[in-house]
Amino acid sequence: MKTNSSILVVGSVAFDSIQTPAGKADQVLGGSGNYFSVAASFYAPVKVVGVVGEDFPKSHLEWLQARHIDVSGIKVVPGKTFHWAGSYDQNMNEAKTLTTALNVFEHFDPTLETAHQNSDYVFLGNIDPILQQKVLQQVRSPKLIAMDSMNFWITGKLEELKKTLAQVDILSINEGEAYLLSGQKNLSKAAAYIRGMGPSVVIIKRGEYGATLFTQKGIFLAPAYPVDTVTDPTGAGDSFAGAFMGYLAEAGASREMMKSDPQKFESILRRAVLAGCVMASFTVEDFSLHRLMRLEASELVQRQNSLMQMIAP
Amino acid sequence: MKTNSSILVVGSVAFDSIQTPAGKADQVLGGSGNYFSVAASFYAPVKVVGVVGEDFPKSHLEWLQARHIDVSGIKVVPGKTFHWAGSYDQNMNEAKTLTTALNVFEHFDPTLETAHQNSDYVFLGNIDPILQQKVLQQVRSPKLIAMDSMNFWITGKLEELKKTLAQVDILSINEGEAYLLSGQKNLSKAAAYIRGMGPSVVIIKRGEYGATLFTQKGIFLAPAYPVDTVTDPTGAGDSFAGAFMGYLAEAGASREMMKSDPQKFESILRRAVLAGCVMASFTVEDFSLHRLMRLEASELVQRQNSLMQMIAP
Repeated sequence: MKTNSSILVVGSVAFDSIQTPAGKADQVLGGSGNYFSVAASFYAPVKVVGVVGEDFPKSHLEWLQARHIDVSGIKVVPGKTFHWAGSYDQNMNEAKTLTTALNVFEHFDPTLETAHQNSDYVFLGNIDPILQQKVLQQVRSPKLIAMDSMNFWITGKLEELKKTLAQVDILSINEGEAYLLSGQKNLSKAAAYIRGMGPSVVIIKRGEYGATLFTQKGIFLAPAYPVDTVTDPTGAGDSFAGAFMGYLAEAGASREMMKSDPQKFESILRRAVLAGCVMASFTVEDFSLHRLMRLEASELVQRQNSLMQMIAP
Repeated sequence: MKTNSSILVVGSVAFDSIQTPAGKADQVLGGSGNYFSVAASFYAPVKVVGVVGEDFPKSHLEWLQARHIDVSGIKVVPGKTFHWAGSYDQNMNEAKTLTTALNVFEHFDPTLETAHQNSDYVFLGNIDPILQQKVLQQVRSPKLIAMDSMNFWITGKLEELKKTLAQVDILSINEGEAYLLSGQKNLSKAAAYIRGMGPSVVIIKRGEYGATLFTQKGIFLAPAYPVDTVTDPTGAGDSFAGAFMGYLAEAGASREMMKSDPQKFESILRRAVLAGCVMASFTVEDFSLHRLMRLEASELVQRQNSLMQMIAP
């Protein structure tokens, strides 16, 4: 970690119960804010804003803190923590939601402390677009704002979502959701449509097929790192986003740089996408945050180098 | 075209009737030998061995000849030409066969003229593995042998297919067929298994997600070139293989080079895979061979450069 620029992430901190062809895991740690922050913490200081119930293990919050992740924005309130149950069939690219118990997350209302308001990089997890806007109203001149969203908000709160989209620099979104949001069935057309809605940078995440970056400079086709065994794809997209934002923060990318040195900005973006692909490839090797929690920086560097070799013509 | 090294392709020359979400085409030109030879002819001289019925248009054979494709090995026999009818749903990655009328292809028996026997590069289309072996018995010391296969032979003539696999340098195969052939459900594992069956180079074609190359030197992840509109995926894999083999021929790749200069061989292979991806991206833009038949060499170069920019980190 070579930067003091901090990343603010607002998202879910949750329990997941997951079934995949490789096995099952009950009541394990999950949530977009959780995956994102652990992934980003390999590159830059992170502050998480979220809410958990009194059933959430203090030991995990302590573990996050020991990784220099600021958890002062995770409120512990009476009640139960958000719980998502999902399953994957042989096609590991799409999760099937079995149950969603919002619990304390239902009344999540992100109020930012001064330290959070001054963050350099902001990532809005796939929460209610009204809450995403509420966060944006509180932050002060961040260098870059990125966001995610999901089917639920695209179909349920499209107008609010459009307002958020108009205010961000970067959207990171799943392929199927990009088609749903744009009404297009072609990757390039979907990205062009979404770029017209606000974000000048669009990243479409394609599961085991990697991610595609669309900017003013063109298209970058990043493959997924081929892992031997995909155990659980949960959190792949969130840890992709975490490493991506972490890389941008470490490299000092900004909205200003996008204008003043678009070539440098593009180059950093491309490396950041590859960093995201590498992080996601570790996430899927085990359930929950298990693989990320035992990931060594040296393994990350090794796999990054390996991926570079796999894409060199 | 900078080479005199010629490529022999043995495969189907056929009529296709195709339905896709973009429209339909009845009784149009198709067949693996057809797609392969037109694609390869942008890079090297090609000789096609196949069989057609008396209903096959002479004008097309003349058109192939005008492109310096040697069609003396396409026998015209009494009866009807092989006819395949298929359709694609929104997921354009897999064809559904509606009908297959082998017609004159049922008694196809490839006998090679001397000129064909002396070809430098040999590509065995996805015909009966017994016929593939018969071709191999007739050729004299080619520099490289590549092949394709398909579900029908993997399930129906596996033992014969294994004999062919043991004799070739390169297998180019669809993702689903690679899983079927290997019994593995993971890309790297499937490739490792298949490399153990004979071919030291395995290319797994993944439709809109590109192609992955597996060699003694490692893995190369090649993306598909993102086209605006996929009209008809038929022939994408065969034209991929044609441009791939054409590139190898033009660059003078050989089994000897694989041993004496593995780094150079690997580098040529990677560029050849990208050439294949570019050619396939043109094929899918229209029905049948329509796009390839009006393709200019300058368009090919332009898109190759464009793809290089899209994969540069």
